[in-house]
Amino acid sequence: MSTSLDAVRDYFLDLQQRIVHQLELADGQSFETDEWVREQGGGGISRYIEEGKLFERGAVLFSHVKGLNLPPSATARRPELAGRPWEAMGVSLVLHPRNPYIPTTHMNVRLFIAEARHDQEERIFWFGGGMDLTPYYGFEEDAIHFHQHCAHALAPFGDDKYPAFKQWCDEYFYLKHRDENRGIGGIFFDDLNAEGFDTCFALVRSVGDHFTKAYLPIVEARRHHRYGERERDFQAYRRGRYVEFNLVFDRGTLFGLQSGGRTESILLSLPPIVRWRYQWTPEAGSPEAQLSDFLRPREWLNHT
Amino acid sequence: MSTSLDAVRDYFLDLQQRIVHQLELADGQSFETDEWVREQGGGGISRYIEEGKLFERGAVLFSHVKGLNLPPSATARRPELAGRPWEAMGVSLVLHPRNPYIPTTHMNVRLFIAEARHDQEERIFWFGGGMDLTPYYGFEEDAIHFHQHCAHALAPFGDDKYPAFKQWCDEYFYLKHRDENRGIGGIFFDDLNAEGFDTCFALVRSVGDHFTKAYLPIVEARRHHRYGERERDFQAYRRGRYVEFNLVFDRGTLFGLQSGGRTESILLSLPPIVRWRYQWTPEAGSPEAQLSDFLRPREWLNHT
Repeated sequence: MSTSLDAVRDYFLDLQQRIVHQLELADGQSFETDEWVREQGGGGISRYIEEGKLFERGAVLFSHVKGLNLPPSATARRPELAGRPWEAMGVSLVLHPRNPYIPTTHMNVRLFIAEARHDQEERIFWFGGGMDLTPYYGFEEDAIHFHQHCAHALAPFGDDKYPAFKQWCDEYFYLKHRDENRGIGGIFFDDLNAEGFDTCFALVRSVGDHFTKAYLPIVEARRHHRYGERERDFQAYRRGRYVEFNLVFDRGTLFGLQSGGRTESILLSLPPIVRWRYQWTPEAGSPEAQLSDFLRPREWLNHT
Repeated sequence: MSTSLDAVRDYFLDLQQRIVHQLELADGQSFETDEWVREQGGGGISRYIEEGKLFERGAVLFSHVKGLNLPPSATARRPELAGRPWEAMGVSLVLHPRNPYIPTTHMNVRLFIAEARHDQEERIFWFGGGMDLTPYYGFEEDAIHFHQHCAHALAPFGDDKYPAFKQWCDEYFYLKHRDENRGIGGIFFDDLNAEGFDTCFALVRSVGDHFTKAYLPIVEARRHHRYGERERDFQAYRRGRYVEFNLVFDRGTLFGLQSGGRTESILLSLPPIVRWRYQWTPEAGSPEAQLSDFLRPREWLNHT
């Protein structure tokens, strides 16, 4: 599998470069580069932007790390693998645009390996990933566009994939304490290995390659919408939900912090400026008041 | 114990009123009142202020709630009690002053009861609580003043209490992923029951009664310090650490969210406006750069 691992690593590194290049073209400002090495093994390349023209804060991270004890948060469905030596690599991105009419987005593709500790154990791999959209103002056509490209990415791998991964996404990005979804979803999958390494890797490549097609047209459609203090304030308030989800529920974040990951890289997912206030609700009938309905899970695409 | 429970409840309600009264005098603006009832049993009174003159956001909460299954986060030292019917009451406060020279503070006093499910089980009670200080700019005299009043509160209950609860506080309010303490500590205790109900309750009353003496003189000493954008920005950045601690580590917050607690009340502890930025460090030699040293646990009082 080591040749395959090299191929996955090469793909992830190339994907990071291609995405950053397209985001730089959209923003007009360059991303910074921060390479780091992890004492316990491995390292990463953080590409990030702060105070860009388009992105107030955003990051496209590559990391390849190893550890001696797989934390329980790494695999929800295979608790029996906890404690094994492990290896993980992937690309993870979060973009927080300044304009509140442009949604925040997240994309991730990753490969995990749990090593065998003795002859009776097998080396286990699994892929995971997904992409999802978190709007502050709801535009149906944006949600449909995003989901269409999610469906396109998965179409070559069977008709069951998009509906299953779409539902998984709705279930995963759910704030239990708010009874609210983080955004309008997309796709999410984990523990992917049943169809063999090559097919799983092809699926993950397709997801990675579809990201900019799913997201950048939405950026272009919304970037010239005018906004003022009212929209910025609403965006800062709603970003509080993003923080709550990532710090309380997100398995990737908790895995990173538990496994002695690089804190500043992991927390690049947090928004640049956030507000909390008590029992606040938008004025009835306002565009802000429509968001909670818009975030309720639904079928964005017509299945026949 | 039901007479005792009434006495504890009366004390907590009175403490809330007294503290709010003193905070209102300091702020010049009134706290709002929000009474709520919990479907599963119990309820509370939230007293809070937003956009006050002194406090940008703050809350003094009373709650008295019951449940059928004690969540594991409720008691670190007695995992065997998880799953029992339970009852909890207490007062919890967090104050986020606007002026960055005034520290944020937190105080909590609480009583937990794990009910017996059958004849072989005993009804178990335990008290918990504490108070701690989170400065943005370090003043040694403030830290000493705060710790002195923590020590005074505990002195009648034995010389061992302050050093033990001070250390517990340093260990509890620790951000593992940052290798940083949340503030300069104070006192923290949990699972208090060995010395009997009456003594434990007396200790908890003493902690509650000492809070305003520990905190308000610091407010008065710092409230007229001038500040500008620079200090406000640093405060917003440091408040990010407060959010990280409360959402990732704080047992009270996680217990509340896990047990179907009232989200808006629980998250009243979060600051009103918060910033995150990547790898930021204050300019060498600046007052902001001195904070990380100031937060390192130390003996603030001379023991002889």
